[in-house]
Amino acid sequence: MQTSSKVRWPAVLGAGARVALVCASGPLVGEADVVRAELHVRGMGWEPLRGASVLARQGYLAGSDEQRITDLQWALDDHTIDAVWCVRGGYGLTRIVSCLSLESFALRPKVVIGYSDVTVLHCAIAARARIVTFHAHTARAALPSMSRDSLRAAVTQGGEPCGVWPEARAVRGGRVAGRLVGGNLSLLAALCGTPDAMSARGAIVVLEDLHEPAYRVDRMLRQLEQSGALRGCVGLAVGQFTLVPVDENVDAPGVDELIDELAQRLGVPCLGNLPIGHIADQWTIPLGASATLDVDACALWTAEGAVNAQ
Amino acid sequence: MQTSSKVRWPAVLGAGARVALVCASGPLVGEADVVRAELHVRGMGWEPLRGASVLARQGYLAGSDEQRITDLQWALDDHTIDAVWCVRGGYGLTRIVSCLSLESFALRPKVVIGYSDVTVLHCAIAARARIVTFHAHTARAALPSMSRDSLRAAVTQGGEPCGVWPEARAVRGGRVAGRLVGGNLSLLAALCGTPDAMSARGAIVVLEDLHEPAYRVDRMLRQLEQSGALRGCVGLAVGQFTLVPVDENVDAPGVDELIDELAQRLGVPCLGNLPIGHIADQWTIPLGASATLDVDACALWTAEGAVNAQ
Repeated sequence: MQTSSKVRWPAVLGAGARVALVCASGPLVGEADVVRAELHVRGMGWEPLRGASVLARQGYLAGSDEQRITDLQWALDDHTIDAVWCVRGGYGLTRIVSCLSLESFALRPKVVIGYSDVTVLHCAIAARARIVTFHAHTARAALPSMSRDSLRAAVTQGGEPCGVWPEARAVRGGRVAGRLVGGNLSLLAALCGTPDAMSARGAIVVLEDLHEPAYRVDRMLRQLEQSGALRGCVGLAVGQFTLVPVDENVDAPGVDELIDELAQRLGVPCLGNLPIGHIADQWTIPLGASATLDVDACALWTAEGAVNAQ
Repeated sequence: MQTSSKVRWPAVLGAGARVALVCASGPLVGEADVVRAELHVRGMGWEPLRGASVLARQGYLAGSDEQRITDLQWALDDHTIDAVWCVRGGYGLTRIVSCLSLESFALRPKVVIGYSDVTVLHCAIAARARIVTFHAHTARAALPSMSRDSLRAAVTQGGEPCGVWPEARAVRGGRVAGRLVGGNLSLLAALCGTPDAMSARGAIVVLEDLHEPAYRVDRMLRQLEQSGALRGCVGLAVGQFTLVPVDENVDAPGVDELIDELAQRLGVPCLGNLPIGHIADQWTIPLGASATLDVDACALWTAEGAVNAQ
């Protein structure tokens, strides 16, 4: 059982921090993606470094498994690099995560940023190294002010990256504290049964996904439950399920209804419709960090900030 | 660890056998589905019995969880019923399988038929009761002569339901014996980490799926491997992956290539393009039974038949 007291934060990112841009999942469209990612890095006052194979392509992968693991391992291990910002998601991390060594990284933790397929990396770090990582836009994504400010708050200022969200949906009332775990539902399901599967014991679980019809969301939530991944979960902080295909069956439940039923089954506080997921304006979630979910206040507060780092 | 010597066959189905038609997954379109299923049962010389809720609907489910589990439990437990033939797949079995009791069924095993979502039921029976079950068309599906003859051979005559398939694709040569496990890849992946997850130790693994793009097939195969579900696998008998969406990425691997790579990684004989899956003419696979996969002969032989029953 993990306890939040043992989770460590990486060092904060100051001006001039060196940020590696790597692609461990799907391929980039081209140079323009990297240029935009570099602009985002510079816009935060940091210095970008390209992974050697960031533009590599091999079908639906950003290069061979060897290329992707080499870049990712370099970014995690090189002590002159302060942060790893994944440039895009897609698919590819479950192919290589079992080859990833986190020993050097655990000795000198650094900021790791991304989401969607990067959920796999977050889960591996949580399971093996217990370092706080950052669920936030990939580097090539549009980065509107709210997303940028939330990321900055999380990794540089020690401010509050989340907070009050009046449009949130109060699914099941209550106020609860716990560390933050979770991410993309499809990847959390794809990790079930593997050594990097999520453990929600004492944790507030974050969920989001895209393009998944309700019956698949249902199936994946059941897998999380039946595999034990949700055992001990104390709360649910649910983001957006975007581009859900229409179900041909009349009266089929929507994703909201499935989330409601899950919260009832688990008997935990649950806030939905949070700004987390495949949307432009999203919160950065410091995974592994302690947080408080207050359903009545429509709020998710992270109790610690990067200022508490080493 | 399971050994084929302890696996038991259900009693053969003779003329007049009473066959329960149940819907434990997705809903039927209407009465015509049940009528067709009943025709198929009568065409085999058996007597059909409708589950009480076979026509129930609740969104993408064939009625409430309670209705579906009640029907399925009745069909498995009633000693006057000789076989359970699922009327369709879809989705719904992972919602109820943990509530299913197999104690009475294990004392008096009977024939269980279906595939696709019914893979969950096959896996639960394999994990908890070790009775041979039958991976074959659901009862409402069109039942052309090859499918019908194969099913009949498997459950009534003790003949050979599989055999030689000249169109098979020799992926990795060799000849190997083992019990048969597997089914629909999506469901095998959805069971990873749960108590009913597949165990391939000493087994020939059957795989098929539909509508899944290659990157998802890749992700699911990785999950089977990394969760240990494929540990000890001795061979692969791969059926059809139908209606695979086109990948937008140039040079993306197809499913055949992913299967080839899997066979190489596992280092086992592998035969592809077998008549198993979401197609009209398919073999019945007696899951749990001993079989011999002979890649050079393009053959899958089941070593036992229902004649060996009790």
